[in-house]
Amino acid sequence: MTNKRVCLIGAGPSGMSVLYHLERLRLEGAIAPENLPEVTCYEKQDDCGGLWNYTWRTGTDEYGENVHGSMYRSLWSNGPKEALEYPDYTFEQHFGGPIPSFPPREALRDYLWGRWNKYNLKPMVTLLHSVQSVNFDPAKDKFTVVVKDLKQNKLLDAKDFDFVVNCSGHFSTPNVPYFKGIERFPGRVMHTHDLRSWREFSGKRVLVVGASYSAEDSALQSIKFGATSVVCSYRSKPMDFRWPDSVSERPLVTEVGGDDRVGAGGWARFSDGSMEQIDYIILATGYLHHYPYLAEQLRLRGPNLLYPAGLYKGTVWLAGGNNRLLYLGAQDQYYTYTMFDAQALWTVRYLTGAIQLPSSAEMAADAKAWVNRAALSKTDQENIAFQTDFVVDLANQSNYGYDLDVSKIFYEWEDHRAEDITTYKDRQFVSKFSGQQAPPPGQPFMKAIDDSLEHFLASCQGK
Amino acid sequence: MTNKRVCLIGAGPSGMSVLYHLERLRLEGAIAPENLPEVTCYEKQDDCGGLWNYTWRTGTDEYGENVHGSMYRSLWSNGPKEALEYPDYTFEQHFGGPIPSFPPREALRDYLWGRWNKYNLKPMVTLLHSVQSVNFDPAKDKFTVVVKDLKQNKLLDAKDFDFVVNCSGHFSTPNVPYFKGIERFPGRVMHTHDLRSWREFSGKRVLVVGASYSAEDSALQSIKFGATSVVCSYRSKPMDFRWPDSVSERPLVTEVGGDDRVGAGGWARFSDGSMEQIDYIILATGYLHHYPYLAEQLRLRGPNLLYPAGLYKGTVWLAGGNNRLLYLGAQDQYYTYTMFDAQALWTVRYLTGAIQLPSSAEMAADAKAWVNRAALSKTDQENIAFQTDFVVDLANQSNYGYDLDVSKIFYEWEDHRAEDITTYKDRQFVSKFSGQQAPPPGQPFMKAIDDSLEHFLASCQGK
Repeated sequence: MTNKRVCLIGAGPSGMSVLYHLERLRLEGAIAPENLPEVTCYEKQDDCGGLWNYTWRTGTDEYGENVHGSMYRSLWSNGPKEALEYPDYTFEQHFGGPIPSFPPREALRDYLWGRWNKYNLKPMVTLLHSVQSVNFDPAKDKFTVVVKDLKQNKLLDAKDFDFVVNCSGHFSTPNVPYFKGIERFPGRVMHTHDLRSWREFSGKRVLVVGASYSAEDSALQSIKFGATSVVCSYRSKPMDFRWPDSVSERPLVTEVGGDDRVGAGGWARFSDGSMEQIDYIILATGYLHHYPYLAEQLRLRGPNLLYPAGLYKGTVWLAGGNNRLLYLGAQDQYYTYTMFDAQALWTVRYLTGAIQLPSSAEMAADAKAWVNRAALSKTDQENIAFQTDFVVDLANQSNYGYDLDVSKIFYEWEDHRAEDITTYKDRQFVSKFSGQQAPPPGQPFMKAIDDSLEHFLASCQGK
Repeated sequence: MTNKRVCLIGAGPSGMSVLYHLERLRLEGAIAPENLPEVTCYEKQDDCGGLWNYTWRTGTDEYGENVHGSMYRSLWSNGPKEALEYPDYTFEQHFGGPIPSFPPREALRDYLWGRWNKYNLKPMVTLLHSVQSVNFDPAKDKFTVVVKDLKQNKLLDAKDFDFVVNCSGHFSTPNVPYFKGIERFPGRVMHTHDLRSWREFSGKRVLVVGASYSAEDSALQSIKFGATSVVCSYRSKPMDFRWPDSVSERPLVTEVGGDDRVGAGGWARFSDGSMEQIDYIILATGYLHHYPYLAEQLRLRGPNLLYPAGLYKGTVWLAGGNNRLLYLGAQDQYYTYTMFDAQALWTVRYLTGAIQLPSSAEMAADAKAWVNRAALSKTDQENIAFQTDFVVDLANQSNYGYDLDVSKIFYEWEDHRAEDITTYKDRQFVSKFSGQQAPPPGQPFMKAIDDSLEHFLASCQGK
């Protein structure tokens, strides 16, 4: 009997965590040779890192593929690094000293690479290969996967796999709502997915549609880079932070319009009847679960939830019943790197036979229970408690070896945000795993412009 | 023996011309029932019109498909309408009176619909269906086509076809070059594919990369909408028009950079060592032949040429030798609607058996001769003469019934452009087919802001 063949889709933090734990356990001799799966990891970008692999491109890339990246420049972590720190590879270890709690993108990317390089994982990833279709063939009892070699612009012959582990992420295909008059709005209309530089908002009046984390960051970044005013529009409830005077909140936009003539501009009307003059519209309206390469019956759909239905342990796709399609990171996220890492280790245990699945009925009941509880959890506190339990459950099942509960850090972080949304990224936390207290940032977030790793490290050392 | 089944991909001007002539000849009883093909036309957008179907969206659409549209608001025809007028349906007929030579987008779209509605073509198009894959199966001697129903987000069962006519166009997937430092440029970097409103350039310093028609229009539109300065950067040779003082030309960009701080800005360095302060970068760098749904051996590749190699009469795909894949509008374009229309009638004659193909050797030799001549043609005049001969040849072969040669109009247009690039769209031409002299525009192009059909028609009538 041959070893199981696994198709791993995507080399972001989730996919790389799968490779990490598999290689770690292999080197530790913890996996019997006959249980060691043959993993092929396909990544459509030219490097590992997923969303952390910044691109200046928008729309389609040089190969005509949809651009995966949704990050803009001068993006600072909006959660404390102590809430996403790997227990077996602390920031302290990586940087050789303490760094502030809210690092810029490049510092987090550097940290991820440090852990990946421990086991030299990059050569295990097939870069610039985009998965085009995944079908399950009941006759062969295999998944049939067609992949495109982007550099050669060539579809490769279909390959068969026993398992498919989908780590493509779900923050790449924007959800772009329509508002009356938007097709004639006299200024740029963009989704945050296409945002790269905040400089273009300098001196402008910005409308931000949305009331979640991207909307919050869009409002602050716009002001930081010189926007004269920001109006945030919410559907259900306002963010209600202590905003700077130049930021205000309104209910949902009902119509936009304006005049193309030089000197004239745009306007937005809101459901309370009020109007505002605006130059730009930023749609911070979230993303779609979008897996066009997966066959119908394998495709996760629906809104961004803490626990999407139909996934045992939030991971095993139950529909169809073969239990050999897995989704990592398909949840809405407070926990990120460590949640993916617990899911990844759970996945590796399952792929190597160390975890056995219960009956279909038991799995369905277990998933249903989580779904029901998620439906009841409404406040940030309840959501954080929910996801903590979810992550801890995965960690326990897979003998993760560390207590991943950092809910206290999240609660404290929420308090800081409520106190002052403009300064919460300047606060400092204590690492659960290194015991290290973070130093204050070299510059407060609202003043820090240069987001490069070099500048960040220099400023940490007070240089 | 059953009638031939044809898969028509795309319902833009080319695809609609195929449906138009097929229906026209059918109604005229010019096609024997046994020669009448069964045509299925798939269009991924929610309406017919191709690029003329304006969308405010950029990147991906509400179904996660790449946005097809490359047109911006306040786009006026950059060639005279008399050079793209259908002989059997003049602008005079459609609008019931004379209109200026350079109409805005909505007026041209309205004109197209007028001709399509003569035969009520829209119901023949399967909208919101995106072709996912086209393969040729030698065993069945059929093309196998897989289509996605976008509304239902569902792949439909593969269908077999005897012919595939690709009318998807080739101005939708941008060619986006990299320039040193672009990933840190402190302002928006965009391809013209993503341009929608020119208002955002008001008061800004714009760099336009490119030296063809989009570059020219980008420079003029930026100034028109209040940009303080425009620098155009060329690779091979400058456009060299009599520009307004605020527009200048430089050789190729070698590096861009700048400073994110409020009040600071960006810069570009050029191959002559000169530098300019800039706020925006518009990449007017053209498009890629991109047909990812077509199997390898069916896929046209290469640059935008007047005569792409390997197409008999610029239309029949010769590789593989089954001669049942056709490409319409794959050429670089001076002639547009009428060229597509001649190709479409030629295609209909071929599909209905009225045109027989010569031997493979003769077809290859014929195509080669055109390719060789195209390679020798360098100036606009030579290119116009070349495409005129190409169009006239197609028309003659297919008994088009009208002389489509409007080269004189193109030559005159080129002279106007050389005289004054800011006023050439205010000039008037005489229709070859209605004999009608166009009136002057209600407002000069550089002053006209409102591009709506209503406003255009009102201003024609001096209202």
